[in-house]
Amino acid sequence: MGKNKMHTHRHYEEGNEWGCGSWLEYTLVVVLASILLLGSLGLTLFWIINFHDGFAWRENTKKQFNLHPVLMVAGFITFSGFSILLYRICRCCRRIYVKLLHTVFHALAIPCVAIGFLAVLDSRNFNRPEAIPNFYSLHSWIGLVTMGLFAIQFVVGFFSFLLLLCCEGATAQFRASLVPIHASFGLTTFMLAIAACLTGLTQKVVESLGDTYHQWKDEGIVVNALGMVLVALGILVSYAVRSPTPKGDTKVYVTERL
Amino acid sequence: MGKNKMHTHRHYEEGNEWGCGSWLEYTLVVVLASILLLGSLGLTLFWIINFHDGFAWRENTKKQFNLHPVLMVAGFITFSGFSILLYRICRCCRRIYVKLLHTVFHALAIPCVAIGFLAVLDSRNFNRPEAIPNFYSLHSWIGLVTMGLFAIQFVVGFFSFLLLLCCEGATAQFRASLVPIHASFGLTTFMLAIAACLTGLTQKVVESLGDTYHQWKDEGIVVNALGMVLVALGILVSYAVRSPTPKGDTKVYVTERL
Repeated sequence: MGKNKMHTHRHYEEGNEWGCGSWLEYTLVVVLASILLLGSLGLTLFWIINFHDGFAWRENTKKQFNLHPVLMVAGFITFSGFSILLYRICRCCRRIYVKLLHTVFHALAIPCVAIGFLAVLDSRNFNRPEAIPNFYSLHSWIGLVTMGLFAIQFVVGFFSFLLLLCCEGATAQFRASLVPIHASFGLTTFMLAIAACLTGLTQKVVESLGDTYHQWKDEGIVVNALGMVLVALGILVSYAVRSPTPKGDTKVYVTERL
Repeated sequence: MGKNKMHTHRHYEEGNEWGCGSWLEYTLVVVLASILLLGSLGLTLFWIINFHDGFAWRENTKKQFNLHPVLMVAGFITFSGFSILLYRICRCCRRIYVKLLHTVFHALAIPCVAIGFLAVLDSRNFNRPEAIPNFYSLHSWIGLVTMGLFAIQFVVGFFSFLLLLCCEGATAQFRASLVPIHASFGLTTFMLAIAACLTGLTQKVVESLGDTYHQWKDEGIVVNALGMVLVALGILVSYAVRSPTPKGDTKVYVTERL
């Protein structure tokens, strides 16, 4: 047991001995990801306000729809993205604080997603002269799967990594075995959220611009740019939370900090 | 050095001591992923042949376009997906054989992607009465990024993990440090390929069906089902190649088999 502790201690120390290149890469990834996470929300707001006249609730169903892309990007991309990145950003904090912040950021995403979902349902059901049907498109199907996975991840994560800490010793092995699954599904949910956004953007821009999409209109370029920011985020966040690079020879210690 | 060898040997043995649950999960993931990888190609063929009258080359640009979705799904999804899964399927083969098969499957994807790309370019450039512009849509931008990442991954992977084996000892540390980056970017490329397919399907179905998309027409349902197969593949492949679950307590040995 004493030997284990020594190993763990040594691992932490080794982990903190970063070279100049590692710090540069860390700063670059964190700064660029933060810019892109906030930029995606900013660009969505810019698109909606400039090309679709802003927001409303049931008094104007067209403007009510506009809440959908903004709130979904805020919840599924900006908040969820920062929540995932926290594990990369907070290098020196205690694990429990990172976990709590991870939960808080995901919890902040919930009202965004819920109101964003309600906005699109309402804008279709209360459309006049007649209601528009729901859940017929590939975008809506992907969105439903993403919301389902998000909900499962939140409940399982909250239960397993926070509530089960009440009996820390007895649940250590179970929690350890769940970490890679939670991490893998978490990244997959983020990628699915990006796919949902990309199909939503494609459907909206093709429906809005029709044949003029290929005339390089301003709205088309803004939507494409927003899509590329989301693609860049998918690449960057996957890279940021990749498995750790083994040090030294081909054999390596990995200490899972739960 | 002798001690290292002993550790490595022990790791292999421990890795092969699988319980009934692990074998069941392995079989389930591999069989389901194989069905979905072949199913996605089958469903694309079914969609194109049943709803878009099959294939042609320059004598009929509309039918020439039909080669694009089929060849892109074959290259980016079916061949690339099997290539990634090989690392999960081949548990007992020698590492070098898995690597060679991984390269062969990716190499098979190249002509599919190249001809699929040429098919869509030709079908637009030779369209009559007038050519259709290229690269204006979000789908085409995502497709270009995916092809770029695929090409970089192929060249870097071929150079680093096959050619550099000529001086195996001297390059071990470099190759070890590249493994998680190559694996992360590989999975990201696969997810981007799925996103490219999903945006392509959305654009095509919205353009083809227009307002009748929400009438639950057969083509809409087939395209949505194909999209969901791709989503299921994204979830399953990410899960299959996740980081290994740590065994025992919170401390774990990981031997990277390069």
